[in-house]
Amino acid sequence: MTTPAKSAVVLLSGGMDSAVAAAIARADGFGLAALTIDYGQRHARELSAAQALARALGCLDHRVVRVDLGAIGGSSLTDARIPVPKNRGPDDIGTGIPSTYVPSRNIVFLAVAAGYAEAIGAGAVYIGANAIDYSGYPDCRPGFLKAFEDALALGTRAGNEGRAIRVLAPLLQLSKADIVRRGRELGVPFEITWSCYEGGERPCGRCDSCLLRAKGFAEAGVDDPTVAAGGARGRT
Amino acid sequence: MTTPAKSAVVLLSGGMDSAVAAAIARADGFGLAALTIDYGQRHARELSAAQALARALGCLDHRVVRVDLGAIGGSSLTDARIPVPKNRGPDDIGTGIPSTYVPSRNIVFLAVAAGYAEAIGAGAVYIGANAIDYSGYPDCRPGFLKAFEDALALGTRAGNEGRAIRVLAPLLQLSKADIVRRGRELGVPFEITWSCYEGGERPCGRCDSCLLRAKGFAEAGVDDPTVAAGGARGRT
Repeated sequence: MTTPAKSAVVLLSGGMDSAVAAAIARADGFGLAALTIDYGQRHARELSAAQALARALGCLDHRVVRVDLGAIGGSSLTDARIPVPKNRGPDDIGTGIPSTYVPSRNIVFLAVAAGYAEAIGAGAVYIGANAIDYSGYPDCRPGFLKAFEDALALGTRAGNEGRAIRVLAPLLQLSKADIVRRGRELGVPFEITWSCYEGGERPCGRCDSCLLRAKGFAEAGVDDPTVAAGGARGRT
Repeated sequence: MTTPAKSAVVLLSGGMDSAVAAAIARADGFGLAALTIDYGQRHARELSAAQALARALGCLDHRVVRVDLGAIGGSSLTDARIPVPKNRGPDDIGTGIPSTYVPSRNIVFLAVAAGYAEAIGAGAVYIGANAIDYSGYPDCRPGFLKAFEDALALGTRAGNEGRAIRVLAPLLQLSKADIVRRGRELGVPFEITWSCYEGGERPCGRCDSCLLRAKGFAEAGVDDPTVAAGGARGRT
């Protein structure tokens, strides 16, 4: 694949999806500039995973930008007074917009990524958004990502100089099992990634994110190298 | 004017433009929820002005959200190594995109404002963007603001539930003199506002922002209650 510019900003959360998206950006021929948003999540576990992943994936640069989304509230991921939903099993995951939805999170992430891309002259932003398993999150929907790319073409210096920043979401239409398979092909170090919405010693195994991850690995027929609390695999 | 929802988020920087935009939102019948982004500007002078303005304008709520745009660099407003341009006079202001442009600043501001609007159920976001005096800033252009509003309609919970968040920029086509006149009509306390890109005891009087402000007050035939260093009016 030819690339319009030599580097891409990759939004790296510390979770498995963004790690696979970054590996795809690398396979697409981009030099990687990783961006992690510290948005007031409940725990720092994800952030340390992102640091380790940036090194493991050979990112040329890694910036951690603090955005205090906790100050605006509205989500169980940033407000300790709202509990993170616990499920009895995969079929228990709701279908509406869950309490873990952080208002406009991806919009804020993409906005900061666009600023970083402008500052370093990167031609693309990669985001691990997924419209299959996160259909309840409006900012993971394809129409939104295209509309945001259109807004960037008009609202950035790069866009006005004819170097529009592309917004690429290579996982958008993949199932979790597809993401696991693609990550394995690309050598993503899944053992470093952290998906759990809580921040304990081990993943809780019961939040939406843990359940989706377990389902993805199971369907792909791949062993998850991380082990949830109470999980069947040996604990380390 | 009828309002689609009872409250609006107003981006309040501490400068005169956003103060006038907030006063217009109030005149439009909205209850005001002020949002100030602490993005790593060179000084805290603007932030204290924003706090005082939120009180003076009768805002129902005021959140200050820290977004560390200094971590991505690229602007003289957030990077102490890049000097803020000093002019000899109003005709000295450049016409290209100046070094004071913060990559994607308004995009980030609007993204956080959209999240806040979602969290509190506000129907609109007011921004003091201006396409006349800040024509060099791509994220102050009308086409961008409309495209961003379109992206929000697709990417927010509110938009997906049929309550799209409007992005309103009532100063977009006003000259600085028009903004001064409109602010005076609405009783904006200009003496609290801070426009200077530097953070001294008094405005520097030589940066683009100081010069545009002085020109606006002069053309409107209104005395600026704040006094620049070396300015002709009496110092306090």
